[in-house]
Amino acid sequence: MFFSFDGLDGVGKTTQMQLFCQWLAEQKTEVVTCRDPGSTPLGERIREILLLSDEQTPIAACSEMLLYMAARAQLVDEIIRPALEADKTVVSDRYLLANIVYQGHAGGLEPDAVRTVGQVATGGILPDCTFLLDMSPKSAMRRMGDQLDRMESRGDGYRQRLRDGFLAEAERTDGAIHVIDADRPVDVVQAELQAIATPLLAG
Amino acid sequence: MFFSFDGLDGVGKTTQMQLFCQWLAEQKTEVVTCRDPGSTPLGERIREILLLSDEQTPIAACSEMLLYMAARAQLVDEIIRPALEADKTVVSDRYLLANIVYQGHAGGLEPDAVRTVGQVATGGILPDCTFLLDMSPKSAMRRMGDQLDRMESRGDGYRQRLRDGFLAEAERTDGAIHVIDADRPVDVVQAELQAIATPLLAG
Repeated sequence: MFFSFDGLDGVGKTTQMQLFCQWLAEQKTEVVTCRDPGSTPLGERIREILLLSDEQTPIAACSEMLLYMAARAQLVDEIIRPALEADKTVVSDRYLLANIVYQGHAGGLEPDAVRTVGQVATGGILPDCTFLLDMSPKSAMRRMGDQLDRMESRGDGYRQRLRDGFLAEAERTDGAIHVIDADRPVDVVQAELQAIATPLLAG
Repeated sequence: MFFSFDGLDGVGKTTQMQLFCQWLAEQKTEVVTCRDPGSTPLGERIREILLLSDEQTPIAACSEMLLYMAARAQLVDEIIRPALEADKTVVSDRYLLANIVYQGHAGGLEPDAVRTVGQVATGGILPDCTFLLDMSPKSAMRRMGDQLDRMESRGDGYRQRLRDGFLAEAERTDGAIHVIDADRPVDVVQAELQAIATPLLAG
């Protein structure tokens, strides 16, 4: 099984993913966690470049998208595919969906173009189940406090486009993306994730 | 007009491109030259990563292809598109074709997949005329001397797949790729390039 967590910064991805992985381990499930971009030497180098974007090293939207894809292709090759082939459960902090939403819906690229490149980059390895942690951009911002990063400092209209993009992607898929109301107590949200995962893990 | 030079290392691309650009300048053509990957701050950083591939930082074939694409998207955005829009003539040392051949035909990826990603990365901006400098891998090797790089040190079978890939791509296009017999004196080869370019520049 391949799970991914996605959503706006501030919705509680890290906390929920940690609790979920603890729970998986208690079920005697062998878990491999990763973050996208990252988790491989190449991915971490690419992550540095992405964070560094500034006037000295401008990065066009399409280049940014392709750098995420390069990191993801390496993640699939080094970590995700081998883990799945060894019947382990993979849990990834973000994946292709974030790319489609951030660089596509909210970043000006065609979502279909990002999807097409994503098919090549992932070799068709997509999550069986994505938890889309959803809440209003205002609530997510409030939880972020001072940690607003480059992405999140772009304003309200941008954050609303991100949320709309995530929800639009959830609607167009065949049920692999679960929209979770994340503006509730941590344990209530976690219980819902586990309730969704239980039959998937049993099947 | 957008020209590109491609072919195996050792076929004389750099020399022929320099002579060609001098000739263009003599025709009062405003010329912008670039190399792919490279020519932008981001592209040069990506180029460093590509040359660095080793056991500490393994790079999967698909990631390698996508890094070339990210560099190319930036090159198009910063240099090639603005130059073409200003009616300048662009001459690039390599372009998408090399990616299709090195990572596709000779590197194990589907050439069509590389082409598909290339369409997104370039936004459809492709050379009007590509000079494919062709010679036997043996002749190209002989000219390289001690400068065999990572790509070229992979053996005869690999170099033959590269040449076959280049020729197959020339055959499937609509005439934008010109196969030039580069195993002739420099001035004879250059005269042929200029003879091909003259009507294109006049049209």
